[in-house]
Amino acid sequence: MAAYDPDNIFAKILAGTIPSHKVYEDADVLAIMDVFPQSRGHTLVIPKAPSRNLLDADPKVLAAVIPTVQKIARAVVAATKADGFRLVQFNEEVAGQTVFHLHFHIIPFYEGQAIGRHAAGNRADDTELAALARDIAGRLA
Amino acid sequence: MAAYDPDNIFAKILAGTIPSHKVYEDADVLAIMDVFPQSRGHTLVIPKAPSRNLLDADPKVLAAVIPTVQKIARAVVAATKADGFRLVQFNEEVAGQTVFHLHFHIIPFYEGQAIGRHAAGNRADDTELAALARDIAGRLA
Repeated sequence: MAAYDPDNIFAKILAGTIPSHKVYEDADVLAIMDVFPQSRGHTLVIPKAPSRNLLDADPKVLAAVIPTVQKIARAVVAATKADGFRLVQFNEEVAGQTVFHLHFHIIPFYEGQAIGRHAAGNRADDTELAALARDIAGRLA
Repeated sequence: MAAYDPDNIFAKILAGTIPSHKVYEDADVLAIMDVFPQSRGHTLVIPKAPSRNLLDADPKVLAAVIPTVQKIARAVVAATKADGFRLVQFNEEVAGQTVFHLHFHIIPFYEGQAIGRHAAGNRADDTELAALARDIAGRLA
């Protein structure tokens, strides 16, 4: 496995040099809206500690972060009225990883709606993302 | 969300009344080979505590289990020589959940190979699954 490369977009979002639609933040984690959502409410939970993916993560960080992932998933479902969701985490390009900083996807599912592709052509509307982020954040407060 | 139904196949596997290809077991978790694998080495990590899915799980259980998921993923990658993997967890039928007891999928990915569908017609060969389980278990010992 390649080493962690600090020149990735999530490192820049964590450093605040690239803006994001923030849902939640604490000492261990930042959660933001995915700007190329596969469905309405697609949220990313990004542990702050640098690791390329699951394999090189500090187990203590994982243990600290997963209850937060659960809380955020609950808030995403409450805000979106989703009928279900997937928790997904990609490791290496062959498996779909595009940003090489560990992150968890929370992808809401809705009855009768197929989910979309995670494609650069499908950037969501920032006004809609900001409203969703506020709604989810409000349920976590 | 519906309540936990103890009459599910993973509860029966945990109780030992249905056989499985065991990879790992401790007080908190059982890991087994998926008998309808989406790729070679598809492994399931099943927390023993009863919960329907992520939302009703005890956060302490999640914190205890996720470092084990990491260890098992590392062993799966070592045993299969996979080029990457996905960690996936489904919540509710609309999102692909078919067994209503919390579980995490570790799905290896290989360069140049598409992954298969999780379909009942694709039951894997038990001899092959047993060999994979032994190989992965050996790397965890």
